[in-house]
Amino acid sequence: MIKAVLAVLLVLVTVSSTFAKYIPKTGKRIPQTLSRGWGDQLIWAQTYEEGLYWSRSRNKPLMVLFHLEDCPHSQALKKIFSEDDQLQKTLDEDFILLNLMYETTDKHLSPDGQYVPRILFVDPSMTVRADINGRYANRMYAYEPSDLSLLINNMKKAKKLLKSEL
Amino acid sequence: MIKAVLAVLLVLVTVSSTFAKYIPKTGKRIPQTLSRGWGDQLIWAQTYEEGLYWSRSRNKPLMVLFHLEDCPHSQALKKIFSEDDQLQKTLDEDFILLNLMYETTDKHLSPDGQYVPRILFVDPSMTVRADINGRYANRMYAYEPSDLSLLINNMKKAKKLLKSEL
Repeated sequence: MIKAVLAVLLVLVTVSSTFAKYIPKTGKRIPQTLSRGWGDQLIWAQTYEEGLYWSRSRNKPLMVLFHLEDCPHSQALKKIFSEDDQLQKTLDEDFILLNLMYETTDKHLSPDGQYVPRILFVDPSMTVRADINGRYANRMYAYEPSDLSLLINNMKKAKKLLKSEL
Repeated sequence: MIKAVLAVLLVLVTVSSTFAKYIPKTGKRIPQTLSRGWGDQLIWAQTYEEGLYWSRSRNKPLMVLFHLEDCPHSQALKKIFSEDDQLQKTLDEDFILLNLMYETTDKHLSPDGQYVPRILFVDPSMTVRADINGRYANRMYAYEPSDLSLLINNMKKAKKLLKSEL
């Protein structure tokens, strides 16, 4: 008898929890992640303001990564970027991270235009490191999947802070 | 024999996929969501710029929700907010949504100070609707869990666009 009551309760709880949650007409969606596939185990800032705040307060450089989900170059870089263990480990331990699909109002983040994929480093002193760039003269902050070692070298440069004393 | 080879291959694939993914020293993390628990089935803008863009292009009002994860008032409101089916449905169909844990540089989003929880509506004409407020004179854009019906009424006000013609 107790089992029957428990079973009914379980059914009621299941039914109510099923009905309590809103499901869109078009079907259940996978919740959006802040990583957007660039490293699900990393901690991402949501906005540039938040990234700058963490960068200053933790004295770590900020990496700002502009990308688009319908851009094949972004997607190709994302695959290499997210699957490289050493890169992910260094990012997790030594950097504040932000990925953006929309431009900010800060012109310093687009020194030579608004294109994707584009990676900018910002020093904890809030200086955009326009001196740390990739290998393409016309799109200085673009990286191809084959530029991964260059990106890792640039991360090392970014880790040498402009003002190392606090 | 073929089965054995397949089994070995399967083990190798499993092992390599296990090792290929970066796991932080402190253990595997749950990927951060953009909803932060305010509605996993809703589509959230990441930044204010993105929210304004979608609001203008889809001619829908933007709801900006400021909260903090260590604020009990935010958490209490979040529970009611995320579990109300009708609210979630209306938000999904008629609003552009943004939740933020860090303030933006736009002073219009803090007409009477930077506190949480705080809900502001922005018209597609990019006008912050400072006229749509809650019941507390000293914190005009704060809502308590018991203010849910007031919030729903305010959403109706926000849906009457300032300039309904395009």
